[in-house]
Amino acid sequence: MRLFVRFLPDPMDLNKKHQMESIQLGISIAISGLASKPERDLLMKDFMMVETVSFPKTGSPTTPAHKFNEFKFKTYAPIAFRHFRALFGIKTDDYLLSVGSTQNHLVELTNPGASGSVFYLTHDDQFIIKTVQPKEAEFLLKLLPQYYMNLRQNPRTLLPKFFGQYCYICGGKNIRLIIMNNLLPSTIKMHQKYDLKGSTYKRKASSHERSKTSPTFKDLDFMEHHKEGLILEPAIYDELMKTIASDLRVLESFKIMDFSLLVGVHNLTLAQDSNGPPIEPMSIENLKETDSWRAIPAKNSKGENLLLFMGIIDILQSYRFKKKLEHTFKSMIHDGDSISVHKPSYYCKRFQEFMGTRVLRPAPS
Amino acid sequence: MRLFVRFLPDPMDLNKKHQMESIQLGISIAISGLASKPERDLLMKDFMMVETVSFPKTGSPTTPAHKFNEFKFKTYAPIAFRHFRALFGIKTDDYLLSVGSTQNHLVELTNPGASGSVFYLTHDDQFIIKTVQPKEAEFLLKLLPQYYMNLRQNPRTLLPKFFGQYCYICGGKNIRLIIMNNLLPSTIKMHQKYDLKGSTYKRKASSHERSKTSPTFKDLDFMEHHKEGLILEPAIYDELMKTIASDLRVLESFKIMDFSLLVGVHNLTLAQDSNGPPIEPMSIENLKETDSWRAIPAKNSKGENLLLFMGIIDILQSYRFKKKLEHTFKSMIHDGDSISVHKPSYYCKRFQEFMGTRVLRPAPS
Repeated sequence: MRLFVRFLPDPMDLNKKHQMESIQLGISIAISGLASKPERDLLMKDFMMVETVSFPKTGSPTTPAHKFNEFKFKTYAPIAFRHFRALFGIKTDDYLLSVGSTQNHLVELTNPGASGSVFYLTHDDQFIIKTVQPKEAEFLLKLLPQYYMNLRQNPRTLLPKFFGQYCYICGGKNIRLIIMNNLLPSTIKMHQKYDLKGSTYKRKASSHERSKTSPTFKDLDFMEHHKEGLILEPAIYDELMKTIASDLRVLESFKIMDFSLLVGVHNLTLAQDSNGPPIEPMSIENLKETDSWRAIPAKNSKGENLLLFMGIIDILQSYRFKKKLEHTFKSMIHDGDSISVHKPSYYCKRFQEFMGTRVLRPAPS
Repeated sequence: MRLFVRFLPDPMDLNKKHQMESIQLGISIAISGLASKPERDLLMKDFMMVETVSFPKTGSPTTPAHKFNEFKFKTYAPIAFRHFRALFGIKTDDYLLSVGSTQNHLVELTNPGASGSVFYLTHDDQFIIKTVQPKEAEFLLKLLPQYYMNLRQNPRTLLPKFFGQYCYICGGKNIRLIIMNNLLPSTIKMHQKYDLKGSTYKRKASSHERSKTSPTFKDLDFMEHHKEGLILEPAIYDELMKTIASDLRVLESFKIMDFSLLVGVHNLTLAQDSNGPPIEPMSIENLKETDSWRAIPAKNSKGENLLLFMGIIDILQSYRFKKKLEHTFKSMIHDGDSISVHKPSYYCKRFQEFMGTRVLRPAPS
């Protein structure tokens, strides 16, 4: 009996599993439904569209029968996100298979931040599904026109790649989700990982974090590990800093702060000993206007060859939405220049300076 | 004495002249002021910016002394319009010289529409300054993000090229202005001109209009003059209709109606006899993605070679703003299918059909 009981799935887990499968079903129907809408130029009104589909247990003309609890599924700005996916080079079939197929289970990630979000990774390592707060979901929708403008003008942007936004509604419960790119592919060993904000105030990984196999370090740790920063070819450095400057103008214009630069460092010199697949570094000669920053060649102070994977994360916190929190933080400010919660313009300026002088440096040319 | 009096300028005219020169001064200061703002990616917030400058008679640190009445000058979305001018290939110095130099007088045009707007042409024939109603000015500002999106995705757009939006304020009087392209260059003889809406209801030029040297005809006149339409190379026809379809999606999405296609027909066969400068027709082979439609080669039913100059005009009338007017019109509808004031979606559909079948036709291939 005991054995039998042990093999019965935990009812909580089963609920969660069904919930995730319902979400995948919702996404698959949303994506399939788009096929009937021909490609056309994106319009402002596309950013404001919301589609709601009901999923009765017995099925409907547009939805299959299912074994889960009945639910509704909202798709935000479906045409706009399709447009974004196309700009990011994501094929609809691949997206459908990765995100929307209940055959392909999602893996829950341990939460790297303290935001209360839950992260799921698709089986193929391509996409991250993140649960977000109502305020964050609302904010992303407001950001979309600006996000589009940035994609058009700054196609190599380091901002998160947003592929879709949804809401799963079941029994009075709303789970808001966004689908993003996975910055740090798990097939590539990251010898070091950093979450950098450009602040030095309490920016040290906890001892709990350090005890992990692949800890995410913070600003002070970085400065200790890489006193001379990460050294880039001057041409790459210049282009990358241009991208960051454009991204920061966008973030500042929407009063966004508390975001981080996530940096994964793959050490090619150390990796030579292991037998992983070879990774193609991007080269400045072949860098196209529309290429994303990925596998950026760099060196550390020992002269070891590195590949950097980086992106700006956690951009859905707007200063406008957190005045109250801000006041709390202000009351505990010790050092106006080194606390990471401050006015957005200051935050962005400091971020840019830190990344451009402490984290990334041009090799002497 | 009598002679002397006759040479004194009419005080009304002088007022108007001073007013126009004040406006030119306002524009020149607005444009010069932009030089200190470096080029950067356009942001959403740029669409909402308004700059106001006071012009005291005695001058100020940023404005010269002048002989006109004191005035204020508002510049709307200065960075956004600079971005548009760059996309349209307008150099700042040229714009400044054409529009903002009081040395270069503006020519008032006889008003082709019944909108109550006044039109001025710059001395070099390049730009049109149009006075607009408060509602129209407000509407253009709301349209700007969508307008930007269209420029990016549909760069050959036939929509008006907007180069700037301003407001001259003097003694409680507000004159709102927009600067646009001049669709029909006066150096090129237009053998025929049409204002087409896709409607046949009362769409005939008045006898007063017909008596002019260069009358603007309407839909019914066009159908009489060109029973077989204007014949285009099939490849040009297809591209042009794609442009029109994209433009109409934009107009419909903003519930815009009552706009027209302005078509100027230059007859090359007739023009051979005269001695004007030769005009380079655009060719489908050399047509670049970013080229504007201009001097489009066509033929009439007699086989004469034509060059077409066309654009969609009067797009600042939104259905949302004219419900009342709409009801008035509805009361006098005789034929739901042939009155030009109707629901925007119907208006756009009929417009597209009329232009694609009655006005423009592909040559048999």
